Amino acid sequence: MFIREMYAQECCDLLARLGTGRLGCARNNHPYVGPIYFAYEPDHLYGFSTVGQKIEWMRDNPLVCVEADEVRARNQWASVIVLGRYEELPDKPEYAELRRQAQSLLEKRAMWWQIGYAASQSRVKPKPVSSVFYCIHIESVSGHQATADAIESFGVRGHSGTRVRQHA
Amino acid sequence: MFIREMYAQECCDLLARLGTGRLGCARNNHPYVGPIYFAYEPDHLYGFSTVGQKIEWMRDNPLVCVEADEVRARNQWASVIVLGRYEELPDKPEYAELRRQAQSLLEKRAMWWQIGYAASQSRVKPKPVSSVFYCIHIESVSGHQATADAIESFGVRGHSGTRVRQHA
Repeated sequence: MFIREMYAQECCDLLARLGTGRLGCARNNHPYVGPIYFAYEPDHLYGFSTVGQKIEWMRDNPLVCVEADEVRARNQWASVIVLGRYEELPDKPEYAELRRQAQSLLEKRAMWWQIGYAASQSRVKPKPVSSVFYCIHIESVSGHQATADAIESFGVRGHSGTRVRQHA
Repeated sequence: MFIREMYAQECCDLLARLGTGRLGCARNNHPYVGPIYFAYEPDHLYGFSTVGQKIEWMRDNPLVCVEADEVRARNQWASVIVLGRYEELPDKPEYAELRRQAQSLLEKRAMWWQIGYAASQSRVKPKPVSSVFYCIHIESVSGHQATADAIESFGVRGHSGTRVRQHA
């Protein structure tokens, strides 16, 4: 297995394709990681969530890290890391256009609303739903891709192998 | 889809079964998230990594968060979150027993050493491998499990449905 750094465009293509990842945030130097759905567009990720620990922490400290990956086999995977800044999109006239944009992008992803909605459900005592749209402004993106090396590929592909670009 | 909190033992069972997750760490309130292999035993996760940003940050601030999940379908998944404290297991006599234990547990997981090893590989200019064993002391564990609700189950299972425990 060989691991190479991905080009920025490859990272963005992966983010656009995936739509799910893990968001890390921090408060008082305590890290917290949780799964998220997101919609990518250049320089931004859009998300939707009920208000809970993650949202409260990001309101306090907007610095976030999102990891998203695609694992095809144990030696064939790609992992992208986004560093960015959280911005909430409240239900106010000045955010109406951004909220519409976020919702429009998220609606293309089935089940995007379900994590937030289902987390608030209870057959016994329904909780009021308090949810937010948010945007993550991407400040940097990087990624690594693993591919089978020649020996691993041989069994599957014969001598054609797999084209890999190694670290310099 | 309904989401319920998991019992502590269910969380531990999932950690023991999975062996992969995403580790979050923080420095100066900047969060960072990256994929890891781990081996679980009660109260501890063991890991192995080449020295890089993640290890350097954890040396500065040992507070970590590990998220591990199992997704069977978009409405059938479980996600566990571990909060803990990083401890490096250096190659010194007083850590020999712990290092053996970590290695023994990790060896049961195929490819556990590959991420660290492959990341240091280059056909052009091999880098010296500097790697560490580490232990995460688990301070708390929690989890959520999603199951299909009666309507979703109906299509697949008829009236037998899926047994779910709702939030109180």
